[in-house]
Amino acid sequence: MTLYVNLAELLGTRIEQGFYRPGDRLPSVRALSVEHGVSLSTVQQAYRVLEDSGLATPKPKSGYFVPVSRELPALPAVGRPAQRPVEISQWDQVLELIRSVPRKDIVQLGRGMPDVTSPTLKPLLRGLARISRRQDMPGLYYDTIYGVHELREQLARLMLDSGCQLGANDLVITTGCHEALSTSIRATCEPGDIVAVDSPSFHGAMQTLKGLGMKALEIPTDPLTGISLDALELALELALEQWPIKAIQLTPNCNNPLGYIMPESRKRALLTLAQRFDVAIIEDDVYGELSYTYPRPRTIKSFDDDGRVLLCSSFSKTLAPGLRIGWVAPGRYLERVLHMKYISTGSTAPQPQIAIAEFLKSGNFEPHLRRMRTQYQRNRDLMIDWVSRYFPTGTRASRPQGGFMLWVELPEGFDTLRLNRALLGQGVQIAVGSIFSASGKYRNCLRMNYAAKPTPQIEEAVRKVGAAAIKLLAEERATD
Amino acid sequence: MTLYVNLAELLGTRIEQGFYRPGDRLPSVRALSVEHGVSLSTVQQAYRVLEDSGLATPKPKSGYFVPVSRELPALPAVGRPAQRPVEISQWDQVLELIRSVPRKDIVQLGRGMPDVTSPTLKPLLRGLARISRRQDMPGLYYDTIYGVHELREQLARLMLDSGCQLGANDLVITTGCHEALSTSIRATCEPGDIVAVDSPSFHGAMQTLKGLGMKALEIPTDPLTGISLDALELALELALEQWPIKAIQLTPNCNNPLGYIMPESRKRALLTLAQRFDVAIIEDDVYGELSYTYPRPRTIKSFDDDGRVLLCSSFSKTLAPGLRIGWVAPGRYLERVLHMKYISTGSTAPQPQIAIAEFLKSGNFEPHLRRMRTQYQRNRDLMIDWVSRYFPTGTRASRPQGGFMLWVELPEGFDTLRLNRALLGQGVQIAVGSIFSASGKYRNCLRMNYAAKPTPQIEEAVRKVGAAAIKLLAEERATD
Repeated sequence: MTLYVNLAELLGTRIEQGFYRPGDRLPSVRALSVEHGVSLSTVQQAYRVLEDSGLATPKPKSGYFVPVSRELPALPAVGRPAQRPVEISQWDQVLELIRSVPRKDIVQLGRGMPDVTSPTLKPLLRGLARISRRQDMPGLYYDTIYGVHELREQLARLMLDSGCQLGANDLVITTGCHEALSTSIRATCEPGDIVAVDSPSFHGAMQTLKGLGMKALEIPTDPLTGISLDALELALELALEQWPIKAIQLTPNCNNPLGYIMPESRKRALLTLAQRFDVAIIEDDVYGELSYTYPRPRTIKSFDDDGRVLLCSSFSKTLAPGLRIGWVAPGRYLERVLHMKYISTGSTAPQPQIAIAEFLKSGNFEPHLRRMRTQYQRNRDLMIDWVSRYFPTGTRASRPQGGFMLWVELPEGFDTLRLNRALLGQGVQIAVGSIFSASGKYRNCLRMNYAAKPTPQIEEAVRKVGAAAIKLLAEERATD
Repeated sequence: MTLYVNLAELLGTRIEQGFYRPGDRLPSVRALSVEHGVSLSTVQQAYRVLEDSGLATPKPKSGYFVPVSRELPALPAVGRPAQRPVEISQWDQVLELIRSVPRKDIVQLGRGMPDVTSPTLKPLLRGLARISRRQDMPGLYYDTIYGVHELREQLARLMLDSGCQLGANDLVITTGCHEALSTSIRATCEPGDIVAVDSPSFHGAMQTLKGLGMKALEIPTDPLTGISLDALELALELALEQWPIKAIQLTPNCNNPLGYIMPESRKRALLTLAQRFDVAIIEDDVYGELSYTYPRPRTIKSFDDDGRVLLCSSFSKTLAPGLRIGWVAPGRYLERVLHMKYISTGSTAPQPQIAIAEFLKSGNFEPHLRRMRTQYQRNRDLMIDWVSRYFPTGTRASRPQGGFMLWVELPEGFDTLRLNRALLGQGVQIAVGSIFSASGKYRNCLRMNYAAKPTPQIEEAVRKVGAAAIKLLAEERATD
């Protein structure tokens, strides 16, 4: 672990354990530098991590303070998944979630839906309409297997922000990030292979492993800094002897569901590990553009010098999921990915591709992103505040550094499946934690979406979740 | 083989061998009935097959005649594919085809593109534009995993025409027929399994088998009546002992590339075979609505009483491929198909689904289909005429009964890969026959698209193909 992460964790623990109280001034950068024998910039980096996690607030010319406004819930514990590859279960619960249709009478906190009501999306909608009226009807023809060239050019430019120097021909457009992930997995693994994943992990990627006959090896993951490199290294060493691990699948930026951004040095270290053990990395960056810090974080792909990283992303979180436009930068696996894309959908619809390319080219994407990032960051603080207020004492919550998902941990033994059933009658739905584990762990956790503009209805929905949790806990204790 | 097919083949052979000459009156229905000891209706059915194949023309009150207008090229020979399961090759040549971008300077006769310039498509384009302007922005949201309900309702009604009594909940919308086929194959087979296919067969389905680690067993297929049931039965019997055949994948209606419609009795017999050997049937009906005869032919699915047929289709040939909207009626495999669809693309874009549902509901689909069927049938006659005129003597050609593809067979030993290379410099592209075989057979065959309204440019392109073939043949003979 790098020095600044180490230091940030040390300070974070002290704050959370009450060693420093709300309102207290934290030690100065200089004092910490002397105390721990590290450089000033290392301390500054550590404070930035704490700031992103809401544990420290800078005041101009006076240093860092423990925020007074509210006491933050403690961070979720690092998971203890099975130390062996497992068959993936939980399809029934995922199906229950994706079967759901948007309904006016249900506040849907469970799905990965962004806010699509922003006026900054209007030029995109106008573009979609315009393409349908064009004389040459480009939306009706087969697209080339790579996808619309103008969009790939715009994407190559966009990806410079994450440190990637790629050309349009290094990219393949896909039907959403799902297709990017499934083609990547199929391009790198065979049925029976094992894929190492962060834990908790995106259920869509895990269900893909299941559907393709692969197993998942869940690696313990820190809610602030991401997948444990030590545990991963151990797994890869064991793999040499007994398990054919072919790829690592993870979401290092604005992780779903934990919201952390993996520090740059750890991204580099992960890549080095992958190189040493010769495995592919499937990097899901679908929330990467929604980082609350500017400039946006780099991808692992941006450090990739031998083409082993397959970067997967889409516009489903930044623009709208209904467009079903994603992409993959498959590195050395390009030919395999093209074959897998061909057999999966033939080609991708051109109309939304052209509309998005125009939206990017006209400079409409950046202002839209800025607006959404600000909205989501503000909503995060509010959602954490609601959880502090309405949820049972001892509830833990993540500190998302991007995106619009909060991970909430209730006391061990609590069953969010029961909670969700109780809530459905009350017009609220959440995502149960167990779908984020290959083996149904995290039953005491849940994920809530905070993308939409806050309304009294949403606050009431969150309050209902908390109240229902308190009630279930009390019942459990009564029957103990 | 049923009686009428037998009789049709007998008469067809006599006509093609010159026993009856152009302009000759063919034996009366009564005479044939007596001669062959079959019922009058059997003879009538046989004449209908000959009529569809262009070998007989009825004249009111005078009986059937051999057409005088032109001499039709002979039918392609029945293929003699390998009598064992093979790994599928030919990906490079498929990639060459699907890599191609529409270019003004190339007449693309190779791809499966319908004519999308018909004014009967205008309401659909207006619908697409209208949805982008709707206040509730339905095009931006995640769809349910099943697809838009209104479209599934319309599809259930449409499928009554092919004899299928299904409800909206028996259908799953897919991202084109490709996704319908790949989810169906994955829902019924495991890597290493063997799938029996018609031969020649649609390259997309075969590449899917390849990509999923399955093998193809190509079954000889008659250019008028479809897959050989005797050969299939033999293969299934052998399979019991040595080969795990899990499914039969075929296109019985307006077959791609041969254009035949499998007679109804043979569809029933195929289903009985599948039941006896307990294998699934994956039925591709993507050209079924484009049959030149009315009412459209029934599907095998329409006879299915135990849910073993997975019917796959799309609007790519009837409306436009760029919409990427298909569907699958997966019978007893519904749950597996849903899982496979989820991991393949998550869900399908709602905007084109809503637009198509409105187009169908407003009664715009039938007039459009009528117009396209008439256009394609007329173009077929023209294309066959051009092949008769411009191609080398002895060239054989299919007699499509629907769709817009002609299969052309050149003398044995001819290489259409070389032909295609020679043509590229001349601004014409065809589909080489070898991609329609798992093992690269049919190198002397090619497929040409006749969807577009005939122009002097298209006739010139076909003439160039013929002239280049004649030139290559002469060169080959010179070096012999």
